[in-house]
Amino acid sequence: MAANMMELARSLAGQLSAWRRDLHRWPELGFCEMLTSCRIARTLTDLGFDQVLVGRDVCFGPGRMGLPSEEVLEEAYAQAAKRGADPVFLAEMEGGFTGVVGILRCGEGPTVALRFDIDALPIQESRDPERLPVREGFVSEHPGVMHACGHDGHTAVGLGVAQVLAACREQLHGTVKLLFQPAEEGVRGAKSMVENGHLDGVDYVLGAHVGACQPGEGPFVGVGSGGTLATAKFDAVFTGKSSHAGMAPQEGRYAMLAAATAVLNLFAIPRHGDAPTRINVGKLTAGTGRNIVCDRAVLELEVRGSTSEANAYMAAYARQILEAAAAMHGCEVEIACVGAAERAENTPALRSLVLETLAQAGVPAREIDDGPEVSEDFSYFAKAVTDHGGQSCYFMNLAQAGAIHHPSFDFDEAALVQGVQAFCAVTARLLEAPQGASCGTAD
Amino acid sequence: MAANMMELARSLAGQLSAWRRDLHRWPELGFCEMLTSCRIARTLTDLGFDQVLVGRDVCFGPGRMGLPSEEVLEEAYAQAAKRGADPVFLAEMEGGFTGVVGILRCGEGPTVALRFDIDALPIQESRDPERLPVREGFVSEHPGVMHACGHDGHTAVGLGVAQVLAACREQLHGTVKLLFQPAEEGVRGAKSMVENGHLDGVDYVLGAHVGACQPGEGPFVGVGSGGTLATAKFDAVFTGKSSHAGMAPQEGRYAMLAAATAVLNLFAIPRHGDAPTRINVGKLTAGTGRNIVCDRAVLELEVRGSTSEANAYMAAYARQILEAAAAMHGCEVEIACVGAAERAENTPALRSLVLETLAQAGVPAREIDDGPEVSEDFSYFAKAVTDHGGQSCYFMNLAQAGAIHHPSFDFDEAALVQGVQAFCAVTARLLEAPQGASCGTAD
Amino acid sequence: MAANMMELARSLAGQLSAWRRDLHRWPELGFCEMLTSCRIARTLTDLGFDQVLVGRDVCFGPGRMGLPSEEVLEEAYAQAAKRGADPVFLAEMEGGFTGVVGILRCGEGPTVALRFDIDALPIQESRDPERLPVREGFVSEHPGVMHACGHDGHTAVGLGVAQVLAACREQLHGTVKLLFQPAEEGVRGAKSMVENGHLDGVDYVLGAHVGACQPGEGPFVGVGSGGTLATAKFDAVFTGKSSHAGMAPQEGRYAMLAAATAVLNLFAIPRHGDAPTRINVGKLTAGTGRNIVCDRAVLELEVRGSTSEANAYMAAYARQILEAAAAMHGCEVEIACVGAAERAENTPALRSLVLETLAQAGVPAREIDDGPEVSEDFSYFAKAVTDHGGQSCYFMNLAQAGAIHHPSFDFDEAALVQGVQAFCAVTARLLEAPQGASCGTAD
Amino acid sequence: MAANMMELARSLAGQLSAWRRDLHRWPELGFCEMLTSCRIARTLTDLGFDQVLVGRDVCFGPGRMGLPSEEVLEEAYAQAAKRGADPVFLAEMEGGFTGVVGILRCGEGPTVALRFDIDALPIQESRDPERLPVREGFVSEHPGVMHACGHDGHTAVGLGVAQVLAACREQLHGTVKLLFQPAEEGVRGAKSMVENGHLDGVDYVLGAHVGACQPGEGPFVGVGSGGTLATAKFDAVFTGKSSHAGMAPQEGRYAMLAAATAVLNLFAIPRHGDAPTRINVGKLTAGTGRNIVCDRAVLELEVRGSTSEANAYMAAYARQILEAAAAMHGCEVEIACVGAAERAENTPALRSLVLETLAQAGVPAREIDDGPEVSEDFSYFAKAVTDHGGQSCYFMNLAQAGAIHHPSFDFDEAALVQGVQAFCAVTARLLEAPQGASCGTAD
Repeated sequence: MAANMMELARSLAGQLSAWRRDLHRWPELGFCEMLTSCRIARTLTDLGFDQVLVGRDVCFGPGRMGLPSEEVLEEAYAQAAKRGADPVFLAEMEGGFTGVVGILRCGEGPTVALRFDIDALPIQESRDPERLPVREGFVSEHPGVMHACGHDGHTAVGLGVAQVLAACREQLHGTVKLLFQPAEEGVRGAKSMVENGHLDGVDYVLGAHVGACQPGEGPFVGVGSGGTLATAKFDAVFTGKSSHAGMAPQEGRYAMLAAATAVLNLFAIPRHGDAPTRINVGKLTAGTGRNIVCDRAVLELEVRGSTSEANAYMAAYARQILEAAAAMHGCEVEIACVGAAERAENTPALRSLVLETLAQAGVPAREIDDGPEVSEDFSYFAKAVTDHGGQSCYFMNLAQAGAIHHPSFDFDEAALVQGVQAFCAVTARLLEAPQGASCGTAD
Repeated sequence: MAANMMELARSLAGQLSAWRRDLHRWPELGFCEMLTSCRIARTLTDLGFDQVLVGRDVCFGPGRMGLPSEEVLEEAYAQAAKRGADPVFLAEMEGGFTGVVGILRCGEGPTVALRFDIDALPIQESRDPERLPVREGFVSEHPGVMHACGHDGHTAVGLGVAQVLAACREQLHGTVKLLFQPAEEGVRGAKSMVENGHLDGVDYVLGAHVGACQPGEGPFVGVGSGGTLATAKFDAVFTGKSSHAGMAPQEGRYAMLAAATAVLNLFAIPRHGDAPTRINVGKLTAGTGRNIVCDRAVLELEVRGSTSEANAYMAAYARQILEAAAAMHGCEVEIACVGAAERAENTPALRSLVLETLAQAGVPAREIDDGPEVSEDFSYFAKAVTDHGGQSCYFMNLAQAGAIHHPSFDFDEAALVQGVQAFCAVTARLLEAPQGASCGTAD
Repeated sequence: MAANMMELARSLAGQLSAWRRDLHRWPELGFCEMLTSCRIARTLTDLGFDQVLVGRDVCFGPGRMGLPSEEVLEEAYAQAAKRGADPVFLAEMEGGFTGVVGILRCGEGPTVALRFDIDALPIQESRDPERLPVREGFVSEHPGVMHACGHDGHTAVGLGVAQVLAACREQLHGTVKLLFQPAEEGVRGAKSMVENGHLDGVDYVLGAHVGACQPGEGPFVGVGSGGTLATAKFDAVFTGKSSHAGMAPQEGRYAMLAAATAVLNLFAIPRHGDAPTRINVGKLTAGTGRNIVCDRAVLELEVRGSTSEANAYMAAYARQILEAAAAMHGCEVEIACVGAAERAENTPALRSLVLETLAQAGVPAREIDDGPEVSEDFSYFAKAVTDHGGQSCYFMNLAQAGAIHHPSFDFDEAALVQGVQAFCAVTARLLEAPQGASCGTAD
Repeated sequence: MAANMMELARSLAGQLSAWRRDLHRWPELGFCEMLTSCRIARTLTDLGFDQVLVGRDVCFGPGRMGLPSEEVLEEAYAQAAKRGADPVFLAEMEGGFTGVVGILRCGEGPTVALRFDIDALPIQESRDPERLPVREGFVSEHPGVMHACGHDGHTAVGLGVAQVLAACREQLHGTVKLLFQPAEEGVRGAKSMVENGHLDGVDYVLGAHVGACQPGEGPFVGVGSGGTLATAKFDAVFTGKSSHAGMAPQEGRYAMLAAATAVLNLFAIPRHGDAPTRINVGKLTAGTGRNIVCDRAVLELEVRGSTSEANAYMAAYARQILEAAAAMHGCEVEIACVGAAERAENTPALRSLVLETLAQAGVPAREIDDGPEVSEDFSYFAKAVTDHGGQSCYFMNLAQAGAIHHPSFDFDEAALVQGVQAFCAVTARLLEAPQGASCGTAD
């Protein structure tokens, strides 16, 4: 079953690599993926997707977390235009409305959603001449921005899946939704897609991430618990009042003291007895000069919990501390939630089906032991689907690769075909004809 | 002028010493001075004072700061009764209504108020056999309580002044008010006497404290700026919620964290640009056991300022910190002001008059340089009088003496006659007959 | 097999209850269990144990953690003497050398150690007339001390086990060691017994704790993971220098600031990525008065970790913080480790054998799910035995019971017979005749 | 006396204004005053000064505090070259060796040193069209740099003084040293000039600062106590170790925690009983991203004291806190002293002479009440001179002016002539002919 899809995927190897390298050359940060989104929309349209949603149809505006400044969004728009983005699609994306949803309707049957995240990281790519992207000339041309997390590959896989499934749509019985999600870094974008209803009525949702095998090991698909840490990301801005530290110290309102008190107390949030938690204040910028009372301090922090409850406990306590720290020193504080993810886990039935299907389809796959130490906003999709009785599975698309989020990250492009095959095999299995009918003829 | 008073004072030396030693033998803490107050009231009554106020007529009940527990007050009452306190006066003092006001009306003229503080300290007196109180058998018999600040001497001086002025009342033209004030230690009692109106209409107020001369120096009266630090004393009780630190740390409300955050931030209250300030958290008691989340923490703290404004800044900031520290960790906090004093300074005119009068009366006296580093609640009397145009002077009654607040403190009883003389000479000068009349006959 | 032991245990019900109630009437705190130890030693001697070790033969002196003050130990000694402790044994216990080891040598075969902890808690027992100990007249007569954790029952079970095994010693092939351990509360005593070599050469070690079934449920033995949190308990004493907070604040060395800084930073020790941890500062006592710079602060704290590594990380970080906090404010700090336990887990083979053996012996038993949220110094015994290849099992002796560590705690005495049966059945199974011989006849 | 100098100064008004505006147009930060120093050196040379010291002869290299990075110094060098700095002088200034000392030897007599500070501030000047510098076209052309503290005026006054004194040198009997000091902002440069011995043998040292009169008031010279706060400025860099906050929090070394602990404890340094103090942490920059353990934190702080002792107490305590905060979290800390000033006060005799001399010379002058709330590194010169018995005076050159250190600061150029007159009148008086001779003819 689906053998033709596997074959077709293999034949796309060159195309997948070309797409991926093209994307790699112009990486875009979260909610700035304008050129990327235009290319995706163009491709899906050309492939004959029944519906291609862009702009405000993708993400619910107010639900987007950690939206960049208007200035940054305008610059992204200008760059995308300059680099040849389709002007019709691009116009819809003004103000950070990126991402694409492609829908393929293949008659009666369940709905399968596949998630591909498309954004890049604020990292300057290494120009080490030994690296493939340098040797082959597809190193990032966007200063300070890099696909260091493999989302260029994820996007290419998504386009490959679109091509295979569109070509074989007569084999499918149901609906396929391809979710090209913006702003996964910082777990900022998924929530707003859920809020626009894209997961309503979805029966199965699948997502994947490229990752590194052991040295010497061949590529394979790893399926684990899919467990991720729930998390919340906050920016907190304390505003006080400056005064001359020598002449009128009593007239200041010390944002510095509020911030330092907050930092210590945030780390001191008591452990949760039921579930491991995390807290980090990773960045703090405060004040202007040594003899001026500091009137502004900006904290960037995150909390995590291995259950959503433990994460909510951490998040609520963190807010309480930030507010009290401000009040303690007569300051104001503005707290913005700039990212969030839920605790998620693979549905056991779908996890088993994935392993079984890939084995049958000849895609190397096995169980892995994945610790719940990272956060992923795929969890919003998983939760939306499982909350109404659907099933979810998140798997690792493993191949030889470097360290993620590092300036010299790269991965073996064998993962591209493998990814397309994995998504297509499982989709085909989930949307195969009612057993009585199709199975009879197939065997 | 007043030569007869000086002579009379000298003749009282034995009586003053006897009074002082008797008081020394049974020292009483603030608002517990029941035996002491009964003796004063008895003596003033016997001396024919026009009015002798006791009980609720002395201090305004709700204005008393740092009132001891009912248990302690009842024990003081029982002890006073047992040691022979006059039952009629004593009955008025139930519940901590101590202190006495004696009024001598001597016709038309200004009103002079003289303050004598009467309470002792929670210090166990030294039984070193070389000390005078031990050798002469008047060491404290009250375990853990001691007149280590000389208020036994202040009280004896007040009684001597009462005797001299009562005897020479025909020389005075105006009104004398003797204020035997409770609870000066911890600056707790003066405010409530002011609130009962005892300083209304007072033209001059005088107070004094015994102190140590340089070794080898003879006794003398020192008159300085009278400057004292404004201060406020607080008890803060944080109430949280206990839980098992191993099993359910997230269910606790950490009074320990609230208290530690408060301590650091209290010390960190920024300096005041206009006036030196002080802050101290001197005592902290928190929690019951190492594996129980601490649900109660008690802080004892004080702030000071060399101006009342700077002190008010410190006090308000301290309250803000205590409240925010509680809110930060979901706790409650109760803040009690258990003592307070204002910034005070001698009225220059009265200060000069005191120096001049004592010189004329043959009482050794000179200017001293007194730093504003201590607090005294005489400041409430000073402020009440100067606020409506009156004058105030606080002087040091200096003699050979030991270190104040120390278990082996003692002073040369020569200070007793000197103190009586100083108060009487100045009172006589302030209440002498209208110049035209009396001066003519005197010279 | 062992049916006669089960029967004999049942017949001891009255005796077990009498022992337990007698112990309950005079509970003794850790390292003060002098009357208790004398009674145990007397009983084991009378039962003909081959060796009965007391005094310095039980615990390694310097290894005892959290030893009470000499004064407390002397008082315990005097009380034990007064209440009729055997003077020969008692003399050995002077200075806190409590606990008893009883050895029964039954020929060739493995060595089985059984642990019974004997100390009480500093809790004032409830005199609610509805409670059994009140109704039956065995409520604690030791003010402020109570067997609120069931160690009176543990001790009675130990004595019952001694009686049964001594009576049936010819059925056993090997050595039995009964370890009556002092000072389990605060995890203070086990380490010093291990340091005296009592676990060297032990093949199996067993321990148990009474606990509460669900309401309405009958008594049973619960066998779980035996997992406990590793822990370390510390007392830290900061010593600074006092000065007058108004006159010379700069001359103080602020133990208060050192302590507050330590508290905040201790709670802020970062989480461990591999294992849940805990931290609590449960008690803090600092300073003498509000206007004196605090020169002494005492912290009582504990850390825990679900692995010994995570616990060691917490303990080392805590020490580093305490030392730096002292240095920060020119203070000294003394840190005493007053309790510690390791991470332990039941050996799976022994756990299975216990469940199987109890089923065969007719003792109700089943698997339970015990969270690793408490600490127990049985873990030292477990580790000592398993480190050289032996096996360990810790089980719950469950019956109707109240809340542990509560003034009204009590338990259904049915647990006493059940406990004796459980220990004896497993010991008999472990020390039954060499397989070739006995198994042949059995089948 | 000196009437001709007063007249000559008045005639220089246009020149002074031209110099000042030229300097205003290209302001330079501390140790970057290369164009400025070249112009000064050129002028003094042209005026025939006996000695004009530049480069390493001015400041002792290692004594320069808060030296900018090499990059910044190179840029300053390049800009100065581009804007026409004299290449011979400029070559000496490479690496931040700015400042000029000009010496005029006028025979036997005392030595008078006059200090003029020449550096600017990192402030972007306001381009408000109503401001004089904008209207007259001399607004700063150096982006982000501005003479917002009037040092352009100070320098112009120095050049004017040079011209007047050089012209009238035959009236002087002794030596004049003009000290054009770099890097006064941040109190960084004076110490290194003292360390090169420029104050050795100086009998009188004078300095001045422009300042604002009351609205409507005419310009005048104000002479006060000259009291300044001693101060020390520190940069502290904490270095820890980053790790992933979700996966391996225990592997980080938290520079963030070290910094926050330091901030709170720095502000909490106890007050000094003898002298007001100040502390401010004005700037803190820490960390790179919210999910990365922060491995670097930079604090900019300062302490002050109204005595050098109190300042030393604060500085030593601050260092102790910074070091302990690093140790507490396993971090390193590097502390750099980037600025310092001593407590200084005007010598009463010279202060009186200045007031008297200016009155005689017709320069409006009066006593002012200047609070000791600012810091000035003129204090190093004052201390160096008074320590060996010389005299020092620092006065205010007051005129209509805006708020110092503000983007729209400006001052009435009437202050320029007034300043030249004041310095020249006092210098003339101090170096007038031996009394017998000249006084006789003068009267």
